[in-house]
This record gives sequence, structure tokens and C-alpha cells, in this order.
Amino acid sequence: MSRPVVSIIGVGLIGGSFGMALKKRGLAGEVIGVGRNPGRLERAVELGALDSWTTDVQEGVSRADLVYVSTPVGMVVDFVKQAAAAVKPGCVITDAGSTKSEICAGAEKAVPEGVHFVGAHPMAGSETAGVEHADPDLFVGAAYVLTPTEKTDAGALALVRSLAEGIGSRIVVIDPAGHDRCVAVISHLPHLMAAALVALAERESKSNPQMLEMLAGSFRDMTRVASSSPVLWRDICISNSGAVVQAVRNFESIMKDAASFVESGNGEGFEEWFAAAKEVRDSLYLVNGEQGE
Amino acid sequence: MSRPVVSIIGVGLIGGSFGMALKKRGLAGEVIGVGRNPGRLERAVELGALDSWTTDVQEGVSRADLVYVSTPVGMVVDFVKQAAAAVKPGCVITDAGSTKSEICAGAEKAVPEGVHFVGAHPMAGSETAGVEHADPDLFVGAAYVLTPTEKTDAGALALVRSLAEGIGSRIVVIDPAGHDRCVAVISHLPHLMAAALVALAERESKSNPQMLEMLAGSFRDMTRVASSSPVLWRDICISNSGAVVQAVRNFESIMKDAASFVESGNGEGFEEWFAAAKEVRDSLYLVNGEQGE
Repeated sequence: MSRPVVSIIGVGLIGGSFGMALKKRGLAGEVIGVGRNPGRLERAVELGALDSWTTDVQEGVSRADLVYVSTPVGMVVDFVKQAAAAVKPGCVITDAGSTKSEICAGAEKAVPEGVHFVGAHPMAGSETAGVEHADPDLFVGAAYVLTPTEKTDAGALALVRSLAEGIGSRIVVIDPAGHDRCVAVISHLPHLMAAALVALAERESKSNPQMLEMLAGSFRDMTRVASSSPVLWRDICISNSGAVVQAVRNFESIMKDAASFVESGNGEGFEEWFAAAKEVRDSLYLVNGEQGE
Repeated sequence: MSRPVVSIIGVGLIGGSFGMALKKRGLAGEVIGVGRNPGRLERAVELGALDSWTTDVQEGVSRADLVYVSTPVGMVVDFVKQAAAAVKPGCVITDAGSTKSEICAGAEKAVPEGVHFVGAHPMAGSETAGVEHADPDLFVGAAYVLTPTEKTDAGALALVRSLAEGIGSRIVVIDPAGHDRCVAVISHLPHLMAAALVALAERESKSNPQMLEMLAGSFRDMTRVASSSPVLWRDICISNSGAVVQAVRNFESIMKDAASFVESGNGEGFEEWFAAAKEVRDSLYLVNGEQGE
């Protein structure tokens, strides 16, 4: 197929940016939006994210070569199911959900013979911020994680991969469970940590209100993601509960090591523990010239 | 006293910035540096942080109205002791250490009748980055925490306060133990969290090396302070061990609440927990227009 007809279900920040990215680069024959809110869909057309739109899933996907489901995590499988029932044979359905095991298992069960599902997670932005913040270059340089299974069709995977590369992403391939363990550690746990730190500071400030006047840059940085959407993060964490709970436990055990060095006055142990982390962190980022605090 | 003679022991980022800040604003009659490394002290004179320098503590503080001890935490009390033995009557000694209970108790025992100690913690920068990064405006808008006790002389406190205000800081007054509980929560715990998160990610990346290609902005922000100096943070955490260990335990208990909501699929409980933190965090920062992720 030369330039696929693409239907985007859920035209928010990610869906809208995907549409803009395709259109800007001439990668799609046509981009059709599917959503609930006509005003916002019309706005997406004005912003250059879509060629046309409909609130009817069946109508919206009937001519599609690729269906892009970019709804909140909890709705992905249901929309894959609805789309799968209305697409033409050979159609590829992909998603942009932040967790993958539940979605891939559910979606693979939902697609009939001859329709292909490819699980994916573009690691850029967040699902809730709305098409107003969409950006045709949102995916440039960002990781676009593909999570094929033994059921994934090679041609379908190649199509999603080529579009993701076409909009400037870096492709990362990993199985769904591996993806979920990774994001539990690098994204879901950090969200819990940020919220827990804010909760602790708030509690402690009851006895020492001066604390709020003493907040510095490190606290601000560490807690930034605590300002994310509670509904969104509720769904993400609960749809990845096994990996999230495991990440919290492993994190706690590492914190306990540090606390016991501190408690016993084991300066050498603490220094080694901290230096090992610093070495890893510096190797990840200091190549870019960023400074520690 | 009109314009005090100020001696700075430990002319690094904080000490150097304090000297520059005083000189730029004409707040000191003279600024004398005391350190170990003649080359770096000479550099501090060239940079406008000092009028003169010496490697001899006794000589460096003999004419001082104010002695400013801005060495790493573990050396503060010893330098207060050395300075106290050589200053003239009425001299005020203050410090810039990141923890206060141990330092204030030790320093108050070290100063003789007629010499005054005022514990302080300017919450700007870090003690290790060197005079090359000193900045006369480092303290502008930053919290300058004063930790007087019942032994603190009112005139001495007023002098330190007026200089801290003169260089543009916001004054925060709190007792040493309260200070240490606050910084354990808002600074020391976050450093442990950052290092523990890096350690966990490193460990998990052994089974899923793709993780390192999936790192996003939240991970980068949350781990920034893990690139800090292990020696510095060893000393800070161990000199505040009681409050740090307590902060780790309280943090763990809040994390356990979150994990049990996730584990049991209690979406409502999780959402409330996260929303409460978001509300506090937004009230602290979103007034400045910062966005969550």
C-alpha cells in the first residue's frame, strides 16, 4: 500500500499529534478522526490534525488501512473490538496505551482472522492534554515502543514501524510484559513516589509550617508528575498492578539498604551505594552536559 | 557596627557567592577568605569574592566582626571551634551547613562567653561546586534559614538576618530540630529516592535492556539529584540520621498505602490518594503556570 487511509479513534494530544505528524509529512492518503465531541473534532480539522471526522466508529473505520486507537488505557480494548468488527480485511489496528499486557491480550482476542493488531506505546506527552496541545513534531526523537507477540503479523508490524519512523520516532521493540515491567519502574513508580513525597511534606508541614517556605529545586523537580491527572494514573497503575506493586517492593528494599547505612552510621556503605547510582545516572545523562545538584 | 569585617572559612560556591554578594552590595567593610588552597583563594580574589586571603585560620578571623563557616557539614564545628579561639570579643560566627541539630549543639559548646554563634542554612546551590560557579545573586529569592536556640544572642541574630536580607534572601526562622526534620523530607529523602530509583532501573535493565531506550522526562527529572556528590550526601545524611530514617519510614508507609490500592484494584482509593497529592502540589506550584505531565 502506498499511502494508507488512517482512522484515529480518540483525537487528543497523542491522536491529534499523530494525525498532524502524518499529514505534515505526507505519510497518509487520508486522516479520519473518530470521537465523541463534534466541536473538538472540528477543531482538530482546523488545526491540521484531520481531513474529516465522525462520531460513528463503524463509519469512521470502514475505509481504513490503519486504525489508531489513542484513547485512555481503560477504553482501548473496547474500541479495538468495535473497530475490528467494522474494518475491511487486512486492516491493521494499533494503539497508544501506556500499559501493554492487558491491552495486547484483550485486543488479540478481539480481532478476527484477517485483521491485525499491533500493540504500541509512543512515549511522548500524555493522553489527556487535548488536541489544542497537539504538535506534528511531538514524536521526533521520542521512543516509540512496539510490543509484538507471536501472534503479530509481520506485515502489520512493518506498517506501524514505518509510520512511527516516518514521524521521527526511535523504535524500541519489547514484549508486552517486559514493556510493563519497564514502565512500572521508569514511569509508574516515579508517579507514586512524587505523590507520596508531596503527601509526606504536607503531613510534616502541619508541625513545621516553615517547610513550605524552604522548598527548593530538587523538591519541585521530584514532585512535578504529582500534578498529573489522578484518573489517568489510576487507570494506568491499576491496569499494570502486578508490575507496579513489584516495582514498589523492589524500590522499598533498596531504600531500606540506604536507610540502614544511615541509621548505623555506615558512611562507607552509604557512599558506595550513592556513588554506584551516581555513576549510572551520570552515564545516562551527563554525556549531554547536565550538572548534578 | 556600620560595615562589618567578614571572614569566610571555606570559599567554595556558597562562601564565594556570599563574599561576592556582600561586596557587590557594599555590605561589608572587608571580606577575608580562609582556605587551604592558595591558587583557589587567589582566584576568589580575582572573581571579586574576597579582598584578601590567608591559609591561617587564626590570622584570618582575628579582625572579623562576622565569621562565615561555609565548609562541608562534617567540618563546621571544628572550624567554629578554631575561629572562636581567635576572634575578638563580640564577634558573631555563623555557618551554612545543610543540617543544624548537631552543628548548633556542637558550635554552642565551642564558643566562649562573649562570642556568639548563629546557626544558618542558605538553601541555594551546594557546598561543593567551587568558587568558579559563585554568583553574587545566588541567594536572591532563596530561603535563608536561621535556626536560633534559647542561647542565641539577639544582636548576633539580627546581624546575620540583616546581611541575609541584604543579599536578597527570604528569611525563614525555625529551631534546629525542626529544620532537620524539614530538610530530611524535602531534600535528603529526595536524594535517597533519586539514587534508589536509578539503582532499581539499572537492576531491571539487566533483564530488559530496552528500558534504557525508553527513559522519558519524568525519570530524568526524578533522578537529577542522584548525580550529586556521594561524599557530600554521605555526610549530610549521616549528620541528620534520625530525621532521615524517620522520613524514609514515613515515606514507605505512604507508598504502601498507594501500593495496596493498586494491588487490590481499589481505583477509588487510589484516585483519592493521588488527587489529594495533586491538589497540594498544584497549590504550591501551579500558581506559576507550570503544567503537570
